[in-house]
Amino acid sequence: MGSSVKQLAVLGSTGSIGQQTLEVVRALPHKFHIVGLAAGKNIDLLVKQINEFKPSFVYFHDKEAQAHLASTEYELLSLEEIARHPQVDTVVMATSGKSGLVPTLAAVKAGKKICLANKESLVMAGEIITNEAKLNAAQILPIDSEHSAIWQCLEGETQPAAQLILTASGGPFHGYSSAQLSGVTVKQALKHPSWQMGRKVTIDSATLMNKGLEVIEAHWLFNIPFEDIKVLIHPQSIIHSMVEFIDGSIKAQLSYPDMRLPIQYALSYPERLANPQLPRLDWSRINSLTFEQPDFDTFPCLKLAIAAGKKGRTYPAVLCAADEVAVELFLSQRIRFTDIVRLVEQALEEHQAVAHPALEEIMAADAWAGEKVMQLATRDNPC
Amino acid sequence: MGSSVKQLAVLGSTGSIGQQTLEVVRALPHKFHIVGLAAGKNIDLLVKQINEFKPSFVYFHDKEAQAHLASTEYELLSLEEIARHPQVDTVVMATSGKSGLVPTLAAVKAGKKICLANKESLVMAGEIITNEAKLNAAQILPIDSEHSAIWQCLEGETQPAAQLILTASGGPFHGYSSAQLSGVTVKQALKHPSWQMGRKVTIDSATLMNKGLEVIEAHWLFNIPFEDIKVLIHPQSIIHSMVEFIDGSIKAQLSYPDMRLPIQYALSYPERLANPQLPRLDWSRINSLTFEQPDFDTFPCLKLAIAAGKKGRTYPAVLCAADEVAVELFLSQRIRFTDIVRLVEQALEEHQAVAHPALEEIMAADAWAGEKVMQLATRDNPC
Repeated sequence: MGSSVKQLAVLGSTGSIGQQTLEVVRALPHKFHIVGLAAGKNIDLLVKQINEFKPSFVYFHDKEAQAHLASTEYELLSLEEIARHPQVDTVVMATSGKSGLVPTLAAVKAGKKICLANKESLVMAGEIITNEAKLNAAQILPIDSEHSAIWQCLEGETQPAAQLILTASGGPFHGYSSAQLSGVTVKQALKHPSWQMGRKVTIDSATLMNKGLEVIEAHWLFNIPFEDIKVLIHPQSIIHSMVEFIDGSIKAQLSYPDMRLPIQYALSYPERLANPQLPRLDWSRINSLTFEQPDFDTFPCLKLAIAAGKKGRTYPAVLCAADEVAVELFLSQRIRFTDIVRLVEQALEEHQAVAHPALEEIMAADAWAGEKVMQLATRDNPC
Repeated sequence: MGSSVKQLAVLGSTGSIGQQTLEVVRALPHKFHIVGLAAGKNIDLLVKQINEFKPSFVYFHDKEAQAHLASTEYELLSLEEIARHPQVDTVVMATSGKSGLVPTLAAVKAGKKICLANKESLVMAGEIITNEAKLNAAQILPIDSEHSAIWQCLEGETQPAAQLILTASGGPFHGYSSAQLSGVTVKQALKHPSWQMGRKVTIDSATLMNKGLEVIEAHWLFNIPFEDIKVLIHPQSIIHSMVEFIDGSIKAQLSYPDMRLPIQYALSYPERLANPQLPRLDWSRINSLTFEQPDFDTFPCLKLAIAAGKKGRTYPAVLCAADEVAVELFLSQRIRFTDIVRLVEQALEEHQAVAHPALEEIMAADAWAGEKVMQLATRDNPC
């Protein structure tokens, strides 16, 4: 096996990003080798992936299932052990939510290349992760389509961006009024108009919380002040984001909405690879790309998130944790769609923030926010 | 004066690109110093420019006017002498038409940085100019907005483009039928919907000949086969062109249509410079960007030019020269708008092409084509 074959660990291999990462590896078997796989809940799929990719290291969340998975073919390790293993050079962080934070930090401290789809880790602990990345010469390569677009547009530029323009599809409720939003169902919220994604991020896209988290992620990834990060609604999801430079020139990155492209770009960087499975834009079928300013009043999660990002300290961790629990409550039909922002806002208001938090303080803020949201929701809707 | 001040010669300083180049220099006086100015016809404006910028070298086309311009403050030189002068590091080739060819070649042979607005020189002598540029380590930096866009999108990429997508506004007659085109006036043809440009290039934009010349220019500048260069109608002229890479990712460059941006980028490269005079896109006022396939049947100049580019040899020189004369005849109201393509096509059909032509053979083809078009036009409309 040549030195140009990258040795990958995919953490979150049974989720949406994890599965699409393995599709890319399947299409380009001479470029990537899977050395580690880790999954949360879906043991059947993980077993299939193990049989196909024959990784050296495996992690599975469920302790009983781990016994079931025991084998002489691979080692059972923890997420952090896989993330920092010397045989791994590139870690794909494809877990959803706060579970990505500790393994991301382990990979960063081990100086790995981290292909990061887990935005929560940067939102919660952006200061720690970016500092540790500098100290340990780790590279954080974004997989989110918006951040991949910005990264591609910045490539080769010798000066920082003057402004980042993050595009947003607007989600399934684009154009709805606040009154209409209060009655929407889980099924409606899970029906994203342009992207196929996991359940958590799909709901976050419907509230625009996802775009707010992406603004915070962009702030840390590209070291840009919040004032210079704008959000623009672009329902077709063809322009994935844009960068404006000091001379007023703007660069944009375009493709059909297909996560395999930003995944592959992060995996193959600095090279680009031909992959016949990736669709090419057909300009004979694209008549118009449209743009609108975001409606901050109807979708207050967006300004709530940006405000939490600007305030910094442990506020972004509370934002993340409160949102994660509130989305879970909505998905299990225990609260309404519009309760999500209300609960997150209340948690942020009651939070006693800590400046320049250590990891333990971030985890404490996270735990506090989760409990607070449960408590507020239970008070509203006692059994 | 610090070493970071670039020493510029502007050839064609009284034309549209020349004047806008001087506007950029005026806005950024600590970055650029004018050492040479050269103009064709407009002596009053040239005298004003000389008084303002105090160049060391001056060229003026009119011999009588040269006597009038004589001064102890500056030297009167030829275009080629200015283009290769040791005191000049960057030559802005802003002349219109074939007059740019010989001085461009002089600058290339002297290993200068050439900010090239004169597309005719590359169209006529692309093989010679690109070979000489390699031999003499000259840099050709495009000023055409489309080629500047492609150049910006390629910056930092380590692999060649899979496809170039040149955008075109469609010109003032976008949507017209062939029948409607035969009756259009000079005044209508000079009214470009989005760009302020010189008369020749404005007429070429109305026939789409300009886009065909740009395809040939892009072929030589970026070393891309004609098959991988597409044209896309985009009436708003906000996306100036795009590059598709082998992974299907597309990068685009955007701005309001204002030539000062590509001029400044070529002058300041590899740096970008803040210039408050350059407009920034206001996304609250951009609702929609639209796209259409070009109408090759109604605007046959486009396919005629691309076919001449593919055939190579002296055909592109004949294309340029025939078009230059035919446009002049249209502007002086001696032929109809739709006669332009007819005369160019007849000249191409009757031409005996020379493979890998030397400069003299290109000039001979040019002279032949000009005479041929005059002859054909006179035969059609005898005095």
